Amino acid sequence: MGSGLSEAARAAAAAVDEGRLWQALMDVAAIGARPDGGVCRHALSDEDIAARARLIGWAEARGHEASVDEAANLFIRRAGREPDAAPVLAGSHLDSQPAGGRFDGVYGVLAGLEALVALDEAGVETERPIDIVAWTNEEGGRFDRSCTGSSIWAGASELESYLGDIGADGVRLGEALAKTLAATPDLPRRPRRWPAHAFIEPHIEQGPVLEAEGVPIAAVTGIQGVRWMNVEVSGKAGHAGTTPMAGRHDSVQAAVRAIAALNDLMADAQDLVRFTVGRVNVTPNSPNTIPEKVLFSIDFRHPDKAKLEMRGGRIGQVVRKAAAPCDTRLMATLTMDPAPFPEPMIALIEAAANGLGLGCRRLASGAFHDALYAAKVCPTAMIFIPCRDGLSHHPAEWAEPRHCADGARVLAATLVELASD
Amino acid sequence: MGSGLSEAARAAAAAVDEGRLWQALMDVAAIGARPDGGVCRHALSDEDIAARARLIGWAEARGHEASVDEAANLFIRRAGREPDAAPVLAGSHLDSQPAGGRFDGVYGVLAGLEALVALDEAGVETERPIDIVAWTNEEGGRFDRSCTGSSIWAGASELESYLGDIGADGVRLGEALAKTLAATPDLPRRPRRWPAHAFIEPHIEQGPVLEAEGVPIAAVTGIQGVRWMNVEVSGKAGHAGTTPMAGRHDSVQAAVRAIAALNDLMADAQDLVRFTVGRVNVTPNSPNTIPEKVLFSIDFRHPDKAKLEMRGGRIGQVVRKAAAPCDTRLMATLTMDPAPFPEPMIALIEAAANGLGLGCRRLASGAFHDALYAAKVCPTAMIFIPCRDGLSHHPAEWAEPRHCADGARVLAATLVELASD
Repeated sequence: MGSGLSEAARAAAAAVDEGRLWQALMDVAAIGARPDGGVCRHALSDEDIAARARLIGWAEARGHEASVDEAANLFIRRAGREPDAAPVLAGSHLDSQPAGGRFDGVYGVLAGLEALVALDEAGVETERPIDIVAWTNEEGGRFDRSCTGSSIWAGASELESYLGDIGADGVRLGEALAKTLAATPDLPRRPRRWPAHAFIEPHIEQGPVLEAEGVPIAAVTGIQGVRWMNVEVSGKAGHAGTTPMAGRHDSVQAAVRAIAALNDLMADAQDLVRFTVGRVNVTPNSPNTIPEKVLFSIDFRHPDKAKLEMRGGRIGQVVRKAAAPCDTRLMATLTMDPAPFPEPMIALIEAAANGLGLGCRRLASGAFHDALYAAKVCPTAMIFIPCRDGLSHHPAEWAEPRHCADGARVLAATLVELASD
Repeated sequence: MGSGLSEAARAAAAAVDEGRLWQALMDVAAIGARPDGGVCRHALSDEDIAARARLIGWAEARGHEASVDEAANLFIRRAGREPDAAPVLAGSHLDSQPAGGRFDGVYGVLAGLEALVALDEAGVETERPIDIVAWTNEEGGRFDRSCTGSSIWAGASELESYLGDIGADGVRLGEALAKTLAATPDLPRRPRRWPAHAFIEPHIEQGPVLEAEGVPIAAVTGIQGVRWMNVEVSGKAGHAGTTPMAGRHDSVQAAVRAIAALNDLMADAQDLVRFTVGRVNVTPNSPNTIPEKVLFSIDFRHPDKAKLEMRGGRIGQVVRKAAAPCDTRLMATLTMDPAPFPEPMIALIEAAANGLGLGCRRLASGAFHDALYAAKVCPTAMIFIPCRDGLSHHPAEWAEPRHCADGARVLAATLVELASD
């Protein structure tokens, strides 16, 4: 597609309205708002249902048709001249972390809706339809296994395998899903899988690079690989005051040794490894009882597949050895190889940003995204915008209105080019 | 009192009925029974209220008067010839750990009731009244600060200071207390404090010594000292996939370093130190968010006051240094010096056991008990019986019926001697 941007793409980008997009972001941020300024909008919760209803209302008021699939992935379509052509898809997710922010995920969905309206106002017609998507349960904050909706759409996993998952609140995923679908009984139902021409996901960077360099746009080169696991450490309960230290099978002490040993395994002078123990659940969790069980989570990421496999493969042994005499059990909850995006897609984002006079750099994604799964189905890329202090998954998460609008402009231009193919 | 046991004491001991005591233990164990054979009977819960009702029913059927004080300490009185004499007090508690057993606490109360019935059946009259007590919230399993009832009765703390405490289930102690008292509106109300002639607490050992040595009775020499604290570690939340390891303020990692450093501080070649981290609460506790806060409990015990103070006093500094760059806050929840029991009381238990032909050894208590507080008011001692594998605070906790009966026999004899003074 070269560096020349079509007139239609320029016109669509020019019609993006910073104030309108910002207002939409703040409106959705109010659904599940936390007193500390953050957002708690769990997947398939009442708040998620309310946010979906808001989107559908906006879409229908503007003449864009909403639809939904069995996994509750929500789609908003702007028609193209060829109704049967594979659509261009863009979007992200509406669910948040329990103590999440106002931009992670929802920005990609609302930048997509803003792009649709900008195309309308610029009078741009495209050959292909454009679908804006809100994928179900990207975060894994309520139901552990994340990217549920995009993974099912991509055929990487089956809907049925998720239905029995129990959320942090004790609710079955199947039940929460049924409730969410029942809230919009009149929406046309999409099939589980269908071909897409391309997928673009706009997102805040969730890291410090763009802000530090003063660059408003990143063309994302790919997503690092992920290993998620839960480690269960089983010891023996007993009275904290009478049981001699020498004979104890204390599961908290075993978990402390295991985490310290994992820190050694994950040591990395380049600081490319990302290793996090974010969840620790102790049983019975009573101050004067030697703890019988600990469950802790492992989130391990690396851009290099070989390193991911080598270190990831040693976790079980390291934990087992360090936790002895307690028993350990390792349960993989997510395994994703690194996913590089296709060069033409990266170049297209770059060309759109440059064509609009916006600074742009290439950047690998530290976080994973629904784009990881979409990339299995169709050419995929991501647009990053800066966020303050690189902070995300936090109530203080923040993106500037002008950066939000810049990202939507690059998206609008990119969609016009892709949908005119 | 020497080694000679009075005829009345022998007669009372002989009237103790192993089957009746065992049946009472199993009846109360059914209240709050867990599927795994253990018991969950939280202080001031519906289960606690039901267990109290059972006791009151038994007492009244046998002509013993029940009464209660403002802290919901429950008393069952067997009258003496001198109604105004300071009574002899015996008992323990009805509440359990969340995953507790069928003997810890409740054995002391029911051995006391069995002793009263044995005195009745033996036709023994005493000068002093005998009160069997069930103290409120010994375990601290629901409301953190343990020994609530005995501590208030002993004047070591004020009832009012507990009312605002929030239980693990979010209920205020004041509310749970009012509900418990409202369940027995007709019981005579005892004053908050009154003089007692002596206090005897029968209890399972909760340690391995008696079982290992094949000795059925211990005359307890005293209770080791206790320092309970909560440590709050404050870090900074962030995205687990994007935030470089180098700049993190990860509160779980800081807690791991702090616990490892405390292990060093608590190292003890004599194995007299008891050091337990039994509770760990992580916020937000999400696998892919760098954890912002950790609260962990410290249970530190030692029989030697000087060592307790020296090591206990260094905990704050050790934690602060190890957890940096995270901030830490140390909150003491319980501080008790070691409490040796008076020699004449220990000798009295010994003499009763020996007089009944039961083996007896002296033993320090590794656990703390309500006796720790009662000892501030009146001469106090404890009777230990063996428990299987030294296991307590665990659903598999177990004591043999014959050992339960032996402990009740020693108690009955001891009560007769003390109440005849």
